[in-house]
Parts: sequence; C-alpha cells; structure tokens
Amino acid sequence: MHTLVQEKVNQAVQILRETEIDAWLTFVRETTAVGDPVLPLIYGQDLTWNSALIITRTGSTYAIVGRFEAETARRLNAYSQVIPYDKSMAPELINVLSALNPGQIAINYSLNDVHADGLSYGMYQLLLSYLAGTGYNDRLISAEALIAALRGRKTASEINLIRAAVNTTQLIFEHTFSFMRPGMTEIDVAEFMHSQLARFGVNPAWHIDHCPAVNTGPNSPVGHSGPTALKIEPGHIVHFDFGVKQNNYCSDIQRVVYYLNHGESHPPAAVQHGFDVIVQAIQQAVASIRPGMQGKEVDSIARGIVTSAGYPEYLYATGHQLGRTAHDGAGLLGPVWERYGDTPNYRIEPGQVYTVEPGIAIPGYGYLGLEEDILVVEDGAVFLSNPQTELIFR
Amino acid sequence: MHTLVQEKVNQAVQILRETEIDAWLTFVRETTAVGDPVLPLIYGQDLTWNSALIITRTGSTYAIVGRFEAETARRLNAYSQVIPYDKSMAPELINVLSALNPGQIAINYSLNDVHADGLSYGMYQLLLSYLAGTGYNDRLISAEALIAALRGRKTASEINLIRAAVNTTQLIFEHTFSFMRPGMTEIDVAEFMHSQLARFGVNPAWHIDHCPAVNTGPNSPVGHSGPTALKIEPGHIVHFDFGVKQNNYCSDIQRVVYYLNHGESHPPAAVQHGFDVIVQAIQQAVASIRPGMQGKEVDSIARGIVTSAGYPEYLYATGHQLGRTAHDGAGLLGPVWERYGDTPNYRIEPGQVYTVEPGIAIPGYGYLGLEEDILVVEDGAVFLSNPQTELIFR
Repeated sequence: MHTLVQEKVNQAVQILRETEIDAWLTFVRETTAVGDPVLPLIYGQDLTWNSALIITRTGSTYAIVGRFEAETARRLNAYSQVIPYDKSMAPELINVLSALNPGQIAINYSLNDVHADGLSYGMYQLLLSYLAGTGYNDRLISAEALIAALRGRKTASEINLIRAAVNTTQLIFEHTFSFMRPGMTEIDVAEFMHSQLARFGVNPAWHIDHCPAVNTGPNSPVGHSGPTALKIEPGHIVHFDFGVKQNNYCSDIQRVVYYLNHGESHPPAAVQHGFDVIVQAIQQAVASIRPGMQGKEVDSIARGIVTSAGYPEYLYATGHQLGRTAHDGAGLLGPVWERYGDTPNYRIEPGQVYTVEPGIAIPGYGYLGLEEDILVVEDGAVFLSNPQTELIFR
Repeated sequence: MHTLVQEKVNQAVQILRETEIDAWLTFVRETTAVGDPVLPLIYGQDLTWNSALIITRTGSTYAIVGRFEAETARRLNAYSQVIPYDKSMAPELINVLSALNPGQIAINYSLNDVHADGLSYGMYQLLLSYLAGTGYNDRLISAEALIAALRGRKTASEINLIRAAVNTTQLIFEHTFSFMRPGMTEIDVAEFMHSQLARFGVNPAWHIDHCPAVNTGPNSPVGHSGPTALKIEPGHIVHFDFGVKQNNYCSDIQRVVYYLNHGESHPPAAVQHGFDVIVQAIQQAVASIRPGMQGKEVDSIARGIVTSAGYPEYLYATGHQLGRTAHDGAGLLGPVWERYGDTPNYRIEPGQVYTVEPGIAIPGYGYLGLEEDILVVEDGAVFLSNPQTELIFR
C-alpha cells in the first residue's frame, strides 16, 4: 500500500508541474464518516481530526495531522514533512502556506466529477474561515483536472491489479455458466456467484445486493434493483453485470447467455442480430480510440451503430473509467447530457482504463448488454477482458 | 434494514415539526465514491445518479432518483413518492419544491459536525445552479440540528443493537485477558483479537490496523498508529482501545491490565492511584449527566477530577457519541477547543449514547485509559458496558 501511495504522490507532483498549479490541498476530517475519494490514492488510510495534505510542484509535501496520527503519517513515508497539532491546525496550515506562497491552491471540488469532489461544503466554509485575511482564499481553484489525471493515469502496478480483477471475474463467469440451468432463479444464480466471491477471496465491485445483476427474460427489471425470483426459462436471454474488487482494484463486465426455446437449434434472428450489433458497436468504438479524443466521440460511434441498426438509444453512457471503484469518475465515454456535466468533453489519455457497454432490449427475449474493460495505450486501446464475440447458447 | 429506515424517516418528520423546518433535502450522487452519513439512516443503500431525498414536516416524502434505481427506492417503502428521471433531475426537483413551497430547506452541511456535512462543495454549487431564479436558494439553511437529533436519539431497536455490540466486545476482552501472557507482542495480542472478531462474525468498529489499539508499557505510542512488536513485560500497564461493528452498530471500550513486576503482590501505588482517579472521573461524570446539560459540562467534571489529582490534562474530549460509527458526530462531551467547533455546546438528550473515556499516562508504567459506553435516559445516564472499576493484575 505504501509503495502505491508514494507512486501516486510523486505522480501528483508531475501533474502539478504539467498543469502549472503551485499547490494542491486536500482538507479532511473523520474520513470514516465523510471520505474524500483521493485519500486512498495519496494517503491510503483514514484521518480523524481536521487534517491537510499539501503537495506542491516543487516536490515538497506536507501532512498536517492530529498528534495521535502523526506516527502513522511518518511511517507512510510519502510526505516530506509531517506536522502534528493538538488544539487547532489553522496556525500550522497558515505557516505552511506562508512559506510556500502559492499562486494557486487547488482544492477538491467539482460539479462534474464526484471523485474530485471530496471537500464538503462545511469544510470549505471552515477553510475560508481559517484563511480569512491571509489573501489565500482568492487563490483557491478546483483540483478537478489534476485529480482526473492522477486518478485516470494508472501506473503499471495499478493496471496489473485491474487485470487480475478482470481475470478473476472471467473465471467466475465460466463457473457460473457451467452451474446455471433453466428453472433456477436469478437469486439462485446470484448466490452461486457470491459463493465464488468467497472462494476467490474477493469482494463485489459494487453493492452485493446487485453485484451481480442477473436478468432473465423480458420481464426482469434491468438496472440496480437486484436479482429476483424470476426463473430462467427456454427462450430467455440471461444478462449479467458483475465485477470484483481485488486488492482495492475493480473489474466491471457484462455477459449474456441465451437459452434455446423448444425446437430451436440456434438463437432466433432477433436475438442473434441484436447481439451482433452490440459486438460491432464495442469493436468499432474500441478500434476508434486514440489519446486526445474526447469521450463523447467514442460514445457517439457506439451509440450511432446501435441507433443506425434501428434500435432505441440506450439511456446511459457507453463507458466509464474503472479503477479503485467500478465507476471511477472523471472523463466519461458519454453523451453530452446535463447529468454528465462536462465529463464527456474530457480528453482520453494513455493509462486510462474504461468500460465499453452498449445495450439493447430485445422484446420478448430479454436484455442484451455486453461490457468490456479496455486500457488506453499510446496509439489506441487494448482489451483487458476477453471480449465476448460469440453468443453463448444452451 | 427497511424497518429501521422507515423508523428514522418517521422520526425525521417529528424532528422537522419540533424544529419548525418545512423541508429537508439530501442531495447526493455516486455515494459509493462520496457518501453522505445520513444516507444509511434515511435510505439504507447507495444512490448513483444525482438524487434528492426530501422529507417534509407535513409527512410527505419524496425520492427523486435515476430511473434504474426507482424500483429499489419503491421497495424500500419509506418515501411516499418515488420520482424517476432519465437525463436531468433539475425539473423534477423544482416541481416538487414548487408544490411544497417550503419556507426553509435544510441541507446537509455543518462546520461542526462531520455527520451533518455530507453535501459536497461541488454538489452545493450544482444545487445553486439548479435552483437559480426560483428564489429557493435564499431559503437554504443547515440541517445540522435536525441531523444531530435524528442521529443522536436512538430508537429502541438501535439501542438494542449497540448493547449487543457492547456485549460481544466484553466477551472478546475476557477471552483476550485469558490468552495474553508476558513475552507476547502487541501485534500477537491484536491478531488474537482479530481472530475473535472472525469467530463472532463481526467487524472492527474502526480500521482494523488500529482496532484494537494495544499499548504495553511506557514506550508504546498511544494513539492511532497500531500495535507494535513491543513485548508485554512485568511492570507494564497493557492498555486496549477496541470496539466491534455488529449489524451496523458499534461499541467502543477501553480496558487496562497490569502485569506485576518481580516481587510485587499488588500494582504499585502510582498505577493504582491513577486507575482510581480515572474510575472516579468516569463515575462522577456519568452520575452528573442530566438531559438538557451541555456536553462541555460533563467534560469539565471528568477533566477536573483528573487535573485536580495533579495529572496533566488529556488532550481529547471526555466522550463522543456512539452509533452507526464509533465516532458518531454531533454533540460531544468535550472542551471548547477550536477543533471541536460548537459541538461541546450541544445539549444532552434522552436516547443518546456516549462514550466516557478519560486517560492519563503513568510514567514508567504505561497508559491508563478506560472507556465506558452509556445511554442517556429521562433522568440521567446508565451504563451499557459493565464498567471496569477494579484494576486487573496478573
């Protein structure tokens, strides 16, 4: 854990240099109650009293923490100065800022990206009161771009952790496809997958109540409402949305299996055609990716293939970033809709990991969605998952 | 879980009536990344897209959530209206507010209480932009007092859950006191306690790296830095700070054991006297508690007994609330120090659960801290833990 934190703190210094921001301030308290999503990256554990982590473009780094947590901060060996306090941290914070005299101080708020929005409104007000009269309040800016780069650009060790989570997920899918039979309920199948999580010693990538999502046939509610008592029947598409969290890094994969109806030797044309369109949408979208593109351009390619084929538009983004969480924030492969803020306009960078997950409902059969995990490299994108390109049927 | 959420939503309506606040708005997104501490109380699960939970003093309640989460919200059966949306929630939010026309809208920010400070600064700005031109921005107030009451006043079922967590903790302490021997390290003892957590099927009440804290002798760093390789030796005070989270509710208890030095038949006077002072501080502070008092008054009684006996003042609050988290926010039995904000001035109410935990270092022997868990009732306070009043020695 310490190595990863040290890597990310060093990466933050580099990004400050690139973005020409002098200092980055993470200001938190009792993070077990209200966490800041950057803390696992740049500190790796919780903080209790009002605490400040300051990273600068010169490379000097500061942790102002309650006295009882100073030893933990020192052991982390990621901050060049650990400054403990007893009754109020305000004087220590002002001392550090006065010595640095930064032109801009980036703080963790963002209208667009939840992962860059860890500063609470109360803590923001507290910070203003601490800095009242110092002039530094006028130098506060959003750390949004900085955090997007830091969180998005995975180090080699981060990519290996995601790849390991993807591999475990694929193994669990294989075991599940062998296990499942018509007559089992969505809940039966989900419970089997939960037993596989335990067997592999990993956690679900999101809340276990809907990880996996299992949807059998046309009457299953797709979304985040969890598996039901609906039974797998001939003529059903069974759709899965599933991921694991393994050593703090996640996978997020969707798969489909079709159960042949009486008299069928192959899936019906409606199901096979829908599947082929989704595969084509994924393959073409991934093949189109180049660093420097905006996420909305990739969304538009996948979305366009689905709608050009005559299917309704899916009402969510084509893909999101993947990392410490299944929905890892910042730039989105998404359409420019109000609820996505500015994130579809962000640029794609090497080292980012995205999902690609178009989907369509096939009336009478069920939901057909696939989701692959991909890594952006210098000249394109590569699959981290083994993409499903054949419709599995039984 | 649904029953507890329904109870707390109903309790919130009552508190809105008491405090004469028309409406309470909880505004969140992707709560797996940035959570709001009130969400487990009034919703019990995560929300993904920008979502609003509105509770009013008339008793009407609204959940505006992304379409994929509407079914989950309906199943919860705690909100009279579940309003799904696809692309932007702003029109739905304005519709609901226009129908209600509330005089005040309480939102979740607080300089004082982290548990009432779940609204991020980015989401606050987003809310202002949604409500621009409606006039409702001028009616926003802090939900601090409302949340403090809701979180603090435990229902009977919440109290039973805390009592169960306390009982498990006391059993684990008993097993640990039988297990431990001179020559074992702090880490050895902590690992045994971790095995007990697994045996009882419960989680640590705070991060497992320092739950339990185990401090043996005078050279062990007291605080949040975790057990070390220091060995238990004759003449050491061994100090524990430990709690469990069982069915989402926590305990938080400190205990001490003294290891007799060669030739000793009883603990030395310095250790016994320190222990007696701490016991006296706890007993008198708890006996003094009456609903309506301010937390700082109780702090002052415990603190005064310690300092009057000639010991240095402990540099933390005498007690904090306990519930879904070990440090459960709102009113504190603490001194009026800057870092505690206004929380030592909050009034004590029936149904609240507090820790009481004075402590002193005994030079040459180790750290002597006890922590008991207590429940405020109509005419005073009762112990939920069996208080340690005798110095255990071996």
